[in-house]
Amino acid sequence: MTEQKDRLTWQEDGGKHPVRHRHGGDVYSCDYKIDYSSNINPLGPPASVVEAVYKSTEQIAHYPDVQCKMLREALAEHEFMTPDRIICGNGAAELIFTYVSALRPKKALLTAPGFAEYESALQAAGCEIRYYPLYEERGFQVGMDYLEYLSEDLDMVILCNPNNPTGVLIPQPLLVMIAGKCEKYGIHMMLDECFNQFLLAPDSYSMRTFLDRFPHLFVLDAFTKTYAMPGLRLGYGMTANRKVLEKMSQVMQPWSVSVPAQYAGLAALKEDTYVHNARWLVKEERKYLMRALRLLGMEFFDSAANYVFFKGPEDLAVLCRQRGILIRDCSNYHGLSGGFFRIAVRTREENEQLVTVLQDIVREKQKESGAVYGWQK
Amino acid sequence: MTEQKDRLTWQEDGGKHPVRHRHGGDVYSCDYKIDYSSNINPLGPPASVVEAVYKSTEQIAHYPDVQCKMLREALAEHEFMTPDRIICGNGAAELIFTYVSALRPKKALLTAPGFAEYESALQAAGCEIRYYPLYEERGFQVGMDYLEYLSEDLDMVILCNPNNPTGVLIPQPLLVMIAGKCEKYGIHMMLDECFNQFLLAPDSYSMRTFLDRFPHLFVLDAFTKTYAMPGLRLGYGMTANRKVLEKMSQVMQPWSVSVPAQYAGLAALKEDTYVHNARWLVKEERKYLMRALRLLGMEFFDSAANYVFFKGPEDLAVLCRQRGILIRDCSNYHGLSGGFFRIAVRTREENEQLVTVLQDIVREKQKESGAVYGWQK
Repeated sequence: MTEQKDRLTWQEDGGKHPVRHRHGGDVYSCDYKIDYSSNINPLGPPASVVEAVYKSTEQIAHYPDVQCKMLREALAEHEFMTPDRIICGNGAAELIFTYVSALRPKKALLTAPGFAEYESALQAAGCEIRYYPLYEERGFQVGMDYLEYLSEDLDMVILCNPNNPTGVLIPQPLLVMIAGKCEKYGIHMMLDECFNQFLLAPDSYSMRTFLDRFPHLFVLDAFTKTYAMPGLRLGYGMTANRKVLEKMSQVMQPWSVSVPAQYAGLAALKEDTYVHNARWLVKEERKYLMRALRLLGMEFFDSAANYVFFKGPEDLAVLCRQRGILIRDCSNYHGLSGGFFRIAVRTREENEQLVTVLQDIVREKQKESGAVYGWQK
Repeated sequence: MTEQKDRLTWQEDGGKHPVRHRHGGDVYSCDYKIDYSSNINPLGPPASVVEAVYKSTEQIAHYPDVQCKMLREALAEHEFMTPDRIICGNGAAELIFTYVSALRPKKALLTAPGFAEYESALQAAGCEIRYYPLYEERGFQVGMDYLEYLSEDLDMVILCNPNNPTGVLIPQPLLVMIAGKCEKYGIHMMLDECFNQFLLAPDSYSMRTFLDRFPHLFVLDAFTKTYAMPGLRLGYGMTANRKVLEKMSQVMQPWSVSVPAQYAGLAALKEDTYVHNARWLVKEERKYLMRALRLLGMEFFDSAANYVFFKGPEDLAVLCRQRGILIRDCSNYHGLSGGFFRIAVRTREENEQLVTVLQDIVREKQKESGAVYGWQK
């Protein structure tokens, strides 16, 4: 078993609550003004989604549709595929656990760093985990050498594109090569595309059009980030592999997607303009944040997503929190040490507030150390 | 592996949707006027719960609290215990799957008939299932001979009190003996008390006050039935066994309980009068339904819950459906054959409609067969 830095132990928590995880977006354990630690659409949930939740209360006295029929049909139209390739879940996170639990891999390959729940799900299934290291010197990119990590004794690989926490993209031609080799070796490939919709050209990077060619491919997406509704829990997976869908259905409860989530999903899928606007907002604001980070002497990496991954003083998250601002300290990611951070791209007004706080912190550090530029001693 | 009659196969479904289950409450696959097939509180969700869902939309742009801190603290107060004994889930059904997946039993004991998801969860974990048969001649009661079924090679038993679909109670002294023997043999005991709150004296039957004495005991409850909110998905489990809670947390995603469900749960726990009223309504209306069934010549069993289990003509559910009424055909329960049905106790007006439909069906059957009493040929 590998190191798992993202879990609370019973003791740390004072024994008050069962063991749970440490992630961004923990807005419950402290006072704060703005949360930059979770990566959701800066526009907030569309009004139609909120309306749909209101409307759904008429139906909460009924069990949710176990087949998510209407939602899956709407998704099928949205994704240009048939509903029999789609499975819905209580957030993408449930589908990660379900996918692993259904296929019970013995050996799996992850990237380091990567989203912590991949590791948690694999560990829960007793799976041996190997890591493809993403190097700072290479800008945290997945390279052609990833193909050499794909060996016949692997049962599963999980990739995220753009990656979390780095925001770095894997080009589609490389993904096709990876999927091809996985197909050849019978390796199940989960590709998490939860941040795909924030790209200016999502289709040029998505693998969801390749499902027929690669039956071992499972593409994951969520409403969480795209429509700013993490509280409602709605994710979905796509694959041409019916056996995988059948197995997943067997290891999960039938009613996992709530009535409000199903209603909200149906409303969200009509919000094309909203998503389009978010894409352009994210592009502009990401540029604004990157420029600000550069002026502060903080190195950032090439993110295509709605968040920016950068290096800063190790106590930055603590200092931000003291000023009422939550940012994601990435030191508990496998493959990262202290001094790496992730901030969500939000609206200009909010981003300005973040930059003001960062400037304030850097200025104080300069005073302490006598440095003339940036925060370095 | 045992027979599993409650699952759709891919073929039955026409290949349109992934494999899911057949239960009561499937109000999506047909037109109907009233649903008597799912057992929820006849009063419908309290207004405060609907209000809470409205209010929760202010928070859907945030991830739910992974610890369900406020909800677990409110539950702790409600249940007279500390929050560290409580785990919340996306409906009780999720906790059934999680419990099994966390403990990975090799041999388990169920009752036949019993709620189908116990079987599904155990089968998904590859567990061998034994059955304690509930006999019609004995009124489907769990007897003292259950103790003889508890052998050292068992890893888990699951019981439901009052049982579903029969509504028959297990007396507390017998449960204490069962829990004692489970403790002695190291058998994990899940006791599903999802219908406990409809009893006139819930505490006299619940085992939740015995958690300290029996660390192998896990008591399951849900908001679903008590507060008529199956669409929101909220259940909880109670145990004094921290290791079990830790293991469960490891095999489930951190954000399984949605923001609307957490808000709704907090509101529901204040609804003491509503629950009290429902208890008395259920008691009166159950009597009304039982009397009507007797007059129709249909044999029923001694239910203490908000549903009545009875025998009728094998095509009764089909005939009801043709008249816009959903009742639960129990022929797909393990241990039952055709001719067993379950109806939910609802309000007087609704129950009268059901009785009218049943009378109509019986009258037609009498005409067909020339019988003078009841539906029997």
